[in-house]
Amino acid sequence: MKAEIITIGDEILIGQIIDTNSAFISKELNKIGVDIYQITSISDEKQHILNALAEAEKRVDLVIITGGLGPTNDDITKHTLCEYFNDHLVQNIQVLNHVEALFDKYIKSPISEVNRQQALIPSKATVLHNEFGTAPGMWIQQNNTVFVSMPGVPFEMKSIVSNHLIPKLQQEFERPFILHKTILTYGVGESRIAEIIEDWENKLPAFIKLAYLPNLGRVRLRLSARGTDKVLLEKGIATAVEGLSPLIGDIIVGYDHDENIEKVIANILTANNLSLAIAESCTGGKITQAFTRMEGASVYFKGSMIPYATEIKSQILGVDQKIIADESVVSDAVASAMAAQTKKLFNSDFSIATTGNAGPTKGDSDAEIGTVFIAIGTPNGIRCEKFIMSNHRQRTIGKATNKAFEMLLEEIEKHLGK
Amino acid sequence: MKAEIITIGDEILIGQIIDTNSAFISKELNKIGVDIYQITSISDEKQHILNALAEAEKRVDLVIITGGLGPTNDDITKHTLCEYFNDHLVQNIQVLNHVEALFDKYIKSPISEVNRQQALIPSKATVLHNEFGTAPGMWIQQNNTVFVSMPGVPFEMKSIVSNHLIPKLQQEFERPFILHKTILTYGVGESRIAEIIEDWENKLPAFIKLAYLPNLGRVRLRLSARGTDKVLLEKGIATAVEGLSPLIGDIIVGYDHDENIEKVIANILTANNLSLAIAESCTGGKITQAFTRMEGASVYFKGSMIPYATEIKSQILGVDQKIIADESVVSDAVASAMAAQTKKLFNSDFSIATTGNAGPTKGDSDAEIGTVFIAIGTPNGIRCEKFIMSNHRQRTIGKATNKAFEMLLEEIEKHLGK
Repeated sequence: MKAEIITIGDEILIGQIIDTNSAFISKELNKIGVDIYQITSISDEKQHILNALAEAEKRVDLVIITGGLGPTNDDITKHTLCEYFNDHLVQNIQVLNHVEALFDKYIKSPISEVNRQQALIPSKATVLHNEFGTAPGMWIQQNNTVFVSMPGVPFEMKSIVSNHLIPKLQQEFERPFILHKTILTYGVGESRIAEIIEDWENKLPAFIKLAYLPNLGRVRLRLSARGTDKVLLEKGIATAVEGLSPLIGDIIVGYDHDENIEKVIANILTANNLSLAIAESCTGGKITQAFTRMEGASVYFKGSMIPYATEIKSQILGVDQKIIADESVVSDAVASAMAAQTKKLFNSDFSIATTGNAGPTKGDSDAEIGTVFIAIGTPNGIRCEKFIMSNHRQRTIGKATNKAFEMLLEEIEKHLGK
Repeated sequence: MKAEIITIGDEILIGQIIDTNSAFISKELNKIGVDIYQITSISDEKQHILNALAEAEKRVDLVIITGGLGPTNDDITKHTLCEYFNDHLVQNIQVLNHVEALFDKYIKSPISEVNRQQALIPSKATVLHNEFGTAPGMWIQQNNTVFVSMPGVPFEMKSIVSNHLIPKLQQEFERPFILHKTILTYGVGESRIAEIIEDWENKLPAFIKLAYLPNLGRVRLRLSARGTDKVLLEKGIATAVEGLSPLIGDIIVGYDHDENIEKVIANILTANNLSLAIAESCTGGKITQAFTRMEGASVYFKGSMIPYATEIKSQILGVDQKIIADESVVSDAVASAMAAQTKKLFNSDFSIATTGNAGPTKGDSDAEIGTVFIAIGTPNGIRCEKFIMSNHRQRTIGKATNKAFEMLLEEIEKHLGK
């Protein structure tokens, strides 16, 4: 079963909003074996919508339309659907009751004529209930294609997809199995990985596809298997993953779909009752934020210092001023001292320290732009490494952050004897 | 001039990544008067790419293609472009030199054959230099349509668009004039603003469109004027903006297009030789990161403490333990003490302090989930406020961050007598 998503609305085409709906719909449909063949974003313009519907009907079995169902004049999806299907609007009493109930409870005012019109739907449509809003989802079948129209408001659309669309698709259509497995790797570039695993890749069975998803020093490898025999797919994926371990096992940090390395670290620290503190100069809070944005951080995370100004590194963090004077503030010695002092001050098992020059101009140091020293404090000592990250400020910060995660995970695993 | 964006890559169609590139490209092209007619996301599959190119060529004058330019097997855009344009790949020596220089500097290894192939481009293509990566942008003109192919890595694509694509489009094509003016407001909701400015909005000339862009306590109002008479548009925008000041002048914090409040604060601090330090508990580094990600932060930013564990607030930051015991760690007294101690420790003119409970579970305090205290330390004292932000962790962190910016800016302006 192939699907196309059509998002309707000028706000996407002028870059005012980022289309997050399509990713959600794609992910959910994918899970039940429906392939998204194409995503098409178009304007609130009748002829454009009609063209897009006709083209999609030729391409796919399922057309998912979002947007243009609001009560104002620029929302024309419903009328355009009537034109496309040679249909007319009729009042749906369940929808009308729901709209009235919503207004009664949250808006505390009687509904106006404009709101009442939300209950008008094409006579050929089956309603998909919208728990959180006034515009219902609509399911219309024509020949061999199903068209589903939903509001563009993300939480309304999500509730319709999860509670009504997915169950109905599962009930009415046979679908193939699709299995994804993502392997998260760190520290080696995409092209080098491709070289190492070339033979392995060439021997993958035809029903498994491999994709590389690189991002600032981390590369995710995604295996996708498709077919009707679920057991065969699972076996194929398992064999493929097994074959990868001897080749790049040392750079694999995790397997699951949405897992990232900071989550892996957080889980290990929590499970082993270990604590972490951080001193970030050039990364300026980015490493810290990656941990604190996840719930449960207070279990293992003691705190951070961001000693941005050079004098703060000695005055508050307690790095010996002589080291800074002798070695410069961007140096192995200063990063190491920061890691040691952080562990001591925060009384933590592990620490991360960064000092560097993210650019675009040189700061209190002559170090080349893009230079970053990363030190990891462990129960057994300090490990420090130097990197030249990039000539782009935010890229350098991002790469240094990812590299710090990678080094910390290595040290934690060493400590735990893994 | 009408454009279509084609994004190539299975990762979008399976919902693994959200397409943020299209919004950036749309926004930038819009600024120079190029309309985005459609955005089409398709798979890494040759026939699909060929079909999409042919359909787009019929619809628009400019086709922007992103993705599929990496060095691995799943990247087939370049070869497919050759097939579409009946062209072949040739080595580009400038690109090869650039790839070698990048490897020499950042990867520290000689380039492999796979990397060398990044310098192969269709003979009909003009290179758009990719400062930050190995895959160049490519510009190919056929009949009356321009095709531009760029890598999908966001910061590489952005640099090509801003530094090479936009200037080339401006040079080679006549476009209508489009003027945008964004008014950044803080602290009042979208619907309330709409009520206040309703009359003003109804009187806007037909060539000016207004859009509301709300986001976690900040609302940007974007005025867009389009036409051929530049002077008329500029006058229209200026008159509209003038009319807004008496209505919502008190919540306007800035005007320029991409300017955000942290940039406004950074500029004022720098210009007035004032300094800032931060203590973040519940916001966990997010406020700090907003400043340090911008270049030039070291001029005004002294540093931060993230005293996540309760004991760190007293041990390192020096908040009186008795205050924490008496008032609880999430309290006006603790936030105020944190702001005062931060100003003192870091010897800064201003400070921000946050303490709260972002959830989803309660921490070292009984405060309701979503409670945040924000304190601003100023040369004249401390101001502290309490908020109940939301029941969603990252939303609470985001709203608290924006509110802290808003309060800090108010205090700085008060101090400067504005």
